[in-house]
Amino acid sequence: MGNSGSDAAGLTLGEASEREALRRIFPRLPESRATLVGPGDDAAVLAAPDGRFVVTTDMMVHGPDFRLAWSGPVDLGWKAAATNLSDVAAMGAVPTALVVAIAAPPETEVAWLEGVADGFRMACAELAPGCGVVGGDLSVSATLTFAVTAFGDLEGRAPVLRSGARPGDVVAVSGALGEAATGLRLLFAEGVDAVGEPDAERFAAVAAAHPEAVGAQLRPRPPIADGPLAAEAGATAMLDLSDGLALDARRVAEASGVAIDLDTSALGPDLGAALTGGEDHGLFAAFPPEVPLPGGFRRVGVVRAGEGLLVDGRPFAERGGWDPYLEWDGGRG
Amino acid sequence: MGNSGSDAAGLTLGEASEREALRRIFPRLPESRATLVGPGDDAAVLAAPDGRFVVTTDMMVHGPDFRLAWSGPVDLGWKAAATNLSDVAAMGAVPTALVVAIAAPPETEVAWLEGVADGFRMACAELAPGCGVVGGDLSVSATLTFAVTAFGDLEGRAPVLRSGARPGDVVAVSGALGEAATGLRLLFAEGVDAVGEPDAERFAAVAAAHPEAVGAQLRPRPPIADGPLAAEAGATAMLDLSDGLALDARRVAEASGVAIDLDTSALGPDLGAALTGGEDHGLFAAFPPEVPLPGGFRRVGVVRAGEGLLVDGRPFAERGGWDPYLEWDGGRG
Repeated sequence: MGNSGSDAAGLTLGEASEREALRRIFPRLPESRATLVGPGDDAAVLAAPDGRFVVTTDMMVHGPDFRLAWSGPVDLGWKAAATNLSDVAAMGAVPTALVVAIAAPPETEVAWLEGVADGFRMACAELAPGCGVVGGDLSVSATLTFAVTAFGDLEGRAPVLRSGARPGDVVAVSGALGEAATGLRLLFAEGVDAVGEPDAERFAAVAAAHPEAVGAQLRPRPPIADGPLAAEAGATAMLDLSDGLALDARRVAEASGVAIDLDTSALGPDLGAALTGGEDHGLFAAFPPEVPLPGGFRRVGVVRAGEGLLVDGRPFAERGGWDPYLEWDGGRG
Repeated sequence: MGNSGSDAAGLTLGEASEREALRRIFPRLPESRATLVGPGDDAAVLAAPDGRFVVTTDMMVHGPDFRLAWSGPVDLGWKAAATNLSDVAAMGAVPTALVVAIAAPPETEVAWLEGVADGFRMACAELAPGCGVVGGDLSVSATLTFAVTAFGDLEGRAPVLRSGARPGDVVAVSGALGEAATGLRLLFAEGVDAVGEPDAERFAAVAAAHPEAVGAQLRPRPPIADGPLAAEAGATAMLDLSDGLALDARRVAEASGVAIDLDTSALGPDLGAALTGGEDHGLFAAFPPEVPLPGGFRRVGVVRAGEGLLVDGRPFAERGGWDPYLEWDGGRG
């Protein structure tokens, strides 16, 4: 969190008033095209041109979700934005706005929070132009925590649910598979010190040696524009790949009352990472067989009558995915 | 957080899967009349009948915002709902829906979280019927944290901002003044053990002796329906009283470019609490002088040309209000 200090640059939340902190953070945040009333009142007012809006919320917590030896403020703002934007896109909607609640220890520097705001601005500019932050909350806490809520506009389209896949549909993926999990594995293997604690110096070496995998973990680039494209193309089901292809495909199969059969030849050289690695934040969708796959979607399998997940035609039982309750070891370094 | 145990009733988040925890919590949550697509997909879809929606977000953090010796799960769910509903009402909107993100220690019992859900349901049923929880997120954290985002429908009305008060307007309040702060003062004075730590047994005695003040602090009852009523009556400015009447009235004065003159004869016997006590979550509004005050609003002063806050015609400088950064002592007991 940087050095504490008494000059303006080192001002901490414990020293600044909430108002002063917000005054410095707000100008760095991205603006939303949907804003009718922006930050500064009891609530914001947003346009919902088609009479509906899409909403999703997601937290990132210091410890189970990120480590400060590996993630800087820009990374954290970026990832908090990207993961929520991806859930909006997975409904077939165009992201319009975010509200951001942050709870941070009193010793957090205001300059560090400015970096978080920069991350939100950069992610919105690159992944979802026109989407911005329309409100938020700043609190103190012993645990650094981000809670982001994201909104989207369906532009008159029906939302694409998990439940619409039909036998005969093609299943397809947009975005990398397994790369974010590979990055996390590398960080836990090589980005730690002798006793296994996350370490900033070791991190720098890992990030330099594996920029793509580490980048996929720390600053994911979900293919946001492909969500609305898939909806327009007639996708019958879609979701954000957050818990690994195997678990997420099984969710679509269950919700749709079908079987999904993945083709290993389409899943790249690291099959384990592709099937069970979480946090890809790509899009998984089913399309009628006659539909040309839009945007960055590529075929990874087919929907069949039946139930559950198949891989190359055989039942695949491995769970995959990450359950924070069952797996967090309490570490926060 | 109750006793840990190995029977189903004592199941903790660390033992349950996220899916199992959500399966038990979801049925207890209130339903929203605005739901088009409810919980269970990447995002929810909500109706925004007039083509706009109001949105606000607020966190409650263990330590600076609540103590577990004083607040039970139902209290916490209630208060997290009520404080957000109040911000929606203060725009003149009818609350339609909430999304709720909770981060809790692994040892938290699922049954305890069911109590939180009950609190959300009870608060929505009583304060904003038709408003419900349409989505959320459940994470682990070393610090129990609630992040709620609330939505509202303006029903075709213009939003009531802080900036519209005009000289000659009457200023009025709906809801109790200073009671929540009195409750908090009582808790810190009498709800603690010999070394000043919040204490459940001492709490029970304070709550029994001062049910109204302690209730106002732990389960605030903001006059939600009065927000839309004020908007319909032609309120020129309005806000949620969260940081004390003095500070909040000064905010309206600043945003509107006017002076606000409060009349002590309208502020009850405990003038200090009424002026500077936070967390009332009543509504403060300005009305044209010819307008009959709607709902529970009562006159507390007048808008004048000039700037800043006056009390009985004299400038009032005391800051009032609660700044979590400057004032949290780090305690979490």
